[in-house]
Amino acid sequence: MALNNTTAFHDEIVVVDGLIIAKWDRELFVDMRKGGLTAANCTVSVWEGFQSTVNNIIDVNQLIAESSELVRPVRTVDDIRAAKKEGRTGIILGFQNAHAFEDQLGYIEIFKQLGIGVVQLCYNTQNLVGTGCYERDGGLSGFGREVIAEMNRVGMLCDLSHVGAVTSREIIEESSKRVCYSHCLPYGLKAHPRNKTDEELKFIADHGGFVGVTMFTPFLAKGTQATIDDYAEGIEYIMNIVGEDSVGIGTDFTQGQDQAFFEWLTHDKGYARELTQFGEIVNPEGIRTIGEFPNLTETLLRRGHSEDRVRKIMGENWLQLLGDVWGTA
Amino acid sequence: MALNNTTAFHDEIVVVDGLIIAKWDRELFVDMRKGGLTAANCTVSVWEGFQSTVNNIIDVNQLIAESSELVRPVRTVDDIRAAKKEGRTGIILGFQNAHAFEDQLGYIEIFKQLGIGVVQLCYNTQNLVGTGCYERDGGLSGFGREVIAEMNRVGMLCDLSHVGAVTSREIIEESSKRVCYSHCLPYGLKAHPRNKTDEELKFIADHGGFVGVTMFTPFLAKGTQATIDDYAEGIEYIMNIVGEDSVGIGTDFTQGQDQAFFEWLTHDKGYARELTQFGEIVNPEGIRTIGEFPNLTETLLRRGHSEDRVRKIMGENWLQLLGDVWGTA
Repeated sequence: MALNNTTAFHDEIVVVDGLIIAKWDRELFVDMRKGGLTAANCTVSVWEGFQSTVNNIIDVNQLIAESSELVRPVRTVDDIRAAKKEGRTGIILGFQNAHAFEDQLGYIEIFKQLGIGVVQLCYNTQNLVGTGCYERDGGLSGFGREVIAEMNRVGMLCDLSHVGAVTSREIIEESSKRVCYSHCLPYGLKAHPRNKTDEELKFIADHGGFVGVTMFTPFLAKGTQATIDDYAEGIEYIMNIVGEDSVGIGTDFTQGQDQAFFEWLTHDKGYARELTQFGEIVNPEGIRTIGEFPNLTETLLRRGHSEDRVRKIMGENWLQLLGDVWGTA
Repeated sequence: MALNNTTAFHDEIVVVDGLIIAKWDRELFVDMRKGGLTAANCTVSVWEGFQSTVNNIIDVNQLIAESSELVRPVRTVDDIRAAKKEGRTGIILGFQNAHAFEDQLGYIEIFKQLGIGVVQLCYNTQNLVGTGCYERDGGLSGFGREVIAEMNRVGMLCDLSHVGAVTSREIIEESSKRVCYSHCLPYGLKAHPRNKTDEELKFIADHGGFVGVTMFTPFLAKGTQATIDDYAEGIEYIMNIVGEDSVGIGTDFTQGQDQAFFEWLTHDKGYARELTQFGEIVNPEGIRTIGEFPNLTETLLRRGHSEDRVRKIMGENWLQLLGDVWGTA
């Protein structure tokens, strides 16, 4: 396929990024349009409690409203389809930690009403629900089971990317709705606590789940030397395990974030002991910025994947998952 | 020993109750004086977060100030000795859950400055520190280790009564200061998730720890038919394992509390799923109220324990423990 056709194809398809944790500003929205993103799950809470998270949502809503020619809020799959038609990027609000729920099951529906569509249950360490992937994991708590039931009830997607292996397995078994790793890479390509083993990938797929693939270079074998083809290799590796209907994109783009932000991310609760060090943060050559997203479509096509499959990977599988969990209301 | 002499002996000795969760009112303080209590660790937080706990402390301080002829606040062992001389009961403020610390290590020193001397790390279920005794216990979290270090640093006693077996063992190993079960009974006399096995009792004692003995009838073999001699039997059973220098009283008196309070206690977070049912709450005959505390001294003497040993059990061992943890400042 010639380059111009490839570009036209990228412009035509639905492109969903299942995880972006970039700095929230207008520049981000401009780059999302450049990259042809139809929708993205953007993080508004990691270590924050209830009230700080609500404050974040207020700020983000204001920012979205100020750039309404570029972006629009998303609460349903129809909103994403509308964003596509309008030439805007739909912003899905998501959490990377259930910490914002605090000890109140009732906060889950409150956050659903505020537009939160995706919540990762743990971020790296233990919380009231379970344990993250950077410490010993005792599994899903009794309260955690109540949280999953309530998220199922209100239609909020359970994300397990940073959740520990035991807690993840138990949530996959507990949830009555499909769950996901929104952004992960295979342990089979690099042994790292954030990456998922073949067994884990198979387990979530066997239970109807979904896997979004990240390209965060600390989790890739070649590290900062990785290129967009290494990213594509990760996608293919996971697709070969979970199948072409259960795989998608979840870049983990952090563009615009400064060193203080990474220090906050990599310390428990944002300030306590250090859990990991990323080193230099640079995305694979060819997809260093959100604006380069068309290169990913081009790379997948170049590597021999059919247009139908690329449509699924780039966005349609995400729409199916979100529709299944959110419902059509 | 004749009854009058026994009464005189009780009036002379230091009597410390390591755990009271009664309704906070003047009536309680009057009964403490009737019972001859020198000091008691009284619960001001279970499921409450930081701010609600501070609000509780404000209310309790006000109540103590209004009954200053009966009670006085306690921050040091000298305060307890002074309470004895003054004929007042010293009120030690304690938590039954580290939930009030929320995710802030800095709150630990704040609460120490507000007079909190004893904190149980978990109440029945999982929190950020570890897991309680009513669910599967994955052990002490990384954040929990930071909490223990900070409690050690500021001089706050770690209580493990409602903490799970794995988390308890790891806190006993982690803490640089003596720790306690403030209120428990032996599993050897009744198999109950709140009771401690011989092995657990030996483990805490072997690590310099301390065990306060409760008489809460749901945890006694005879249940509501139990008498003060069944309580004494529990004390003796534990003393035979931990030694006469590491045992004390921790009644768990709940007098004045209503059914709504017990519903709150027995549901996770105060409202979520039910964790246990106590049934009828009635203390052993002979020590149904705090005012009957002299009967316990009399019972221990009657059962052949020396005055020296009874002094230790009834209060001196608690003073030693508190002094060791709080320091002499």
